[in-house]
Amino acid sequence: MKTITLSTAQPTELLDITNELHDAVAEAGIQEGVCSVFCLHTTSCIIVNEHEPGLKQDFETVVRELLPQAAYRHDCVDNNARSHLTAGIVGCNLMIPVHQGRLVLGTWQSVFFVELDGPRPRRSVAVQVIPS
Amino acid sequence: MKTITLSTAQPTELLDITNELHDAVAEAGIQEGVCSVFCLHTTSCIIVNEHEPGLKQDFETVVRELLPQAAYRHDCVDNNARSHLTAGIVGCNLMIPVHQGRLVLGTWQSVFFVELDGPRPRRSVAVQVIPS
Amino acid sequence: MKTITLSTAQPTELLDITNELHDAVAEAGIQEGVCSVFCLHTTSCIIVNEHEPGLKQDFETVVRELLPQAAYRHDCVDNNARSHLTAGIVGCNLMIPVHQGRLVLGTWQSVFFVELDGPRPRRSVAVQVIPS
Repeated sequence: MKTITLSTAQPTELLDITNELHDAVAEAGIQEGVCSVFCLHTTSCIIVNEHEPGLKQDFETVVRELLPQAAYRHDCVDNNARSHLTAGIVGCNLMIPVHQGRLVLGTWQSVFFVELDGPRPRRSVAVQVIPS
Repeated sequence: MKTITLSTAQPTELLDITNELHDAVAEAGIQEGVCSVFCLHTTSCIIVNEHEPGLKQDFETVVRELLPQAAYRHDCVDNNARSHLTAGIVGCNLMIPVHQGRLVLGTWQSVFFVELDGPRPRRSVAVQVIPS
Repeated sequence: MKTITLSTAQPTELLDITNELHDAVAEAGIQEGVCSVFCLHTTSCIIVNEHEPGLKQDFETVVRELLPQAAYRHDCVDNNARSHLTAGIVGCNLMIPVHQGRLVLGTWQSVFFVELDGPRPRRSVAVQVIPS
């Protein structure tokens, strides 16, 4: 298991981790299988989409406002309930095909870590390659 | 393949299944790989988040109200369209890293079965450990 | 790795791919493991739910309207921001158990490819079977 570590600079921020995943697959030396990507936090998530600057900003707006601002109970414990709830719904993991030793993504697909409660100095994503 | 069986007591209810997953990984005896968690229903789902009682209630409220109450066609067949639609969007499966024979979760991560159309006497979740 | 190819006829459309997945599992000849389903596009996604005609239409309505129509930045590049954003949130991949050489789905579960920016002549879904 490899761990990718990231730091985030904004409250809500998409960080492209596709290159780190390509590197992890190359290092693993597995020809056929799947690459497991698992975000180790409860206020951040993982998505796949096109890496276009305007769309990246659109995603940041959409995930920030996906759920209503409301009187959440968890906000009495820690003022980040909406970040937790959004992360739970969007999802923390992803399995990507590996074929002929390379990650298989569609033409427009990139993989993003999504910060929902930043900035944070250290965020971690577990990466593994599972052979088929 | 192991099956975890659950019963639910409320229309909408989060049940923490993290301990059952730890047990399944220990039983499997696999050191490195991923644990597959797959909910076998169309009106329940699986999420990862912090186990804090207020947040659990917040999640129950949020998933109950995620989609608008509307004149869904499926409600003429069975009056649970919104449960089906929410389950489809949130997702029924999860792959969690296994490292050194143990499930790898972040400090605040627990795994929850989410009932969206309860109470139900018997719900099932398939669990497998896949070696890397 | 096998690729399922599809063509879509509507802007928003659910296509049931369960039979294609059953075939892929039978061809793979693997008795125990998981079937990986990965949609290779950024304006379509994968969901699991019941195959009931009214519910299929309900899903098409719900995913079309899940996010607000707004002044998205990506619409200046290509007029399909809402399709991208919805696809990112719903998710592009799924891992389904394989037991005794067969795909394990609950009684009411079918797997759907969800077109969010159609019609399109060629859509692709990567399918693999990973042994446990």
